Amino acid sequence: MSKDRTVTACLIIIGNEILSGRTRDANLSYLAKWLNEEVGIQMREARVIPDIEDTIVDTVNECRAKFDYVFTTGGIGPTHDDITTEAVAKAFGIEHDLLPEAHEVLKEYYGPEGLTSARARMAYGPVGSTLIDNPISKAPGFQIENVFIMAGIPQIMQVMCDSLKHSLTGGKPVKSRSIRTELPESRIAKVLTELDQQYEHVDIGSYPFFNNGKAGTSLVVRTTEEDLLIEVSDIIYQSAFELGGNPVFEEVD
Amino acid sequence: MSKDRTVTACLIIIGNEILSGRTRDANLSYLAKWLNEEVGIQMREARVIPDIEDTIVDTVNECRAKFDYVFTTGGIGPTHDDITTEAVAKAFGIEHDLLPEAHEVLKEYYGPEGLTSARARMAYGPVGSTLIDNPISKAPGFQIENVFIMAGIPQIMQVMCDSLKHSLTGGKPVKSRSIRTELPESRIAKVLTELDQQYEHVDIGSYPFFNNGKAGTSLVVRTTEEDLLIEVSDIIYQSAFELGGNPVFEEVD
Repeated sequence: MSKDRTVTACLIIIGNEILSGRTRDANLSYLAKWLNEEVGIQMREARVIPDIEDTIVDTVNECRAKFDYVFTTGGIGPTHDDITTEAVAKAFGIEHDLLPEAHEVLKEYYGPEGLTSARARMAYGPVGSTLIDNPISKAPGFQIENVFIMAGIPQIMQVMCDSLKHSLTGGKPVKSRSIRTELPESRIAKVLTELDQQYEHVDIGSYPFFNNGKAGTSLVVRTTEEDLLIEVSDIIYQSAFELGGNPVFEEVD
Repeated sequence: MSKDRTVTACLIIIGNEILSGRTRDANLSYLAKWLNEEVGIQMREARVIPDIEDTIVDTVNECRAKFDYVFTTGGIGPTHDDITTEAVAKAFGIEHDLLPEAHEVLKEYYGPEGLTSARARMAYGPVGSTLIDNPISKAPGFQIENVFIMAGIPQIMQVMCDSLKHSLTGGKPVKSRSIRTELPESRIAKVLTELDQQYEHVDIGSYPFFNNGKAGTSLVVRTTEEDLLIEVSDIIYQSAFELGGNPVFEEVD
């Protein structure tokens, strides 16, 4: 892929526990930042879907055609509700079977007696896929073409990112600068509209906040072009200053 | 809608700041629990999409055909990146214009001089929509058919839920019980598989955790049938006890 074009990704979060509200997803925000900063890939969509095979099959097929890379999180453990690898195999129309390499890894980790049939389930994947190393609990992720099947547990998802980094080709990372001001966003709206129209390749976000009863706005400038980043964010800083908004550049978290 | 059938919802989270990883969404988990507990509506999918008009139009049209209710969060403020109401109007093929009732509410709140053109922008919505009251900062949400346009700021989204409750018709709420055990999930997998096959209308989730270096599993039973809930969760508790897993019933958070 060319360094000049935008490389896109989509995250499919698989799990009834996210949709029921029991668990708050932590993987989207980590993966989005990591992909941008480490590889220059832009997260363009995320979907949260239930543990239902047909839904996983349809969503994977739609998204792998639409984005350069697709990541899934969740549903690769040893229990009955872990159906992601089977569903992805079905989406590709390929077999789902015991992968000898994955079986070896698990056998070494658990010992021949410790590798129960439930644990051995984690060695099944789409036939022909590449394993994604999991240094924490060994059960691997799987890559098949542009789809990366990852763990749902954040710590494991994060070490899997390091393992698969060499398999990704990105473009220019998006850089950002954020200005925090005491202005309500309506006070600075006009300036932002003008800048938005003038600078096509710069994304300007306006995020109101309430803090200890005081309202204010964070203005985030995002672009792959370093010079435009400085130019536009300096204009916003200056405008907020002139409007009496006590602007400060803040860490983008 | 009949009390016997499942009533479904989808949440469309609109905002570049969620996809960039800057902000972690807090609305999905609140809304999913609130819809289930207060109205008996099941969240079946969520999508995170960017501030791009065509994407919003397509996503709203796909989801409003597929689910009983669609909620959107984000993009209804006074700045250039707030394009949700316009995009939803376009999705329905109806006009987007100043809504007199919304204009009155804002004029009363800001006073005639305080209602700048940026703020007045928040009184524009899909023509024919019903306002969703916002007791905190007054700028309303909008309901058009089965689509509810809500604020992205969690405090405001939450008070809007109270305002729109009477507009929703749900079914039976899903009840849940959760059992925390020291067993790794592979140790209890067989029991769960059998229960999953035996009880068609009960959803059993298995969620491994690591806490202070100790691994364990939370087992969550979910169903609309109170008697099945007690029956299945008691069997799981007993099985975990017999396997030496020190089970305890825990609060579902």
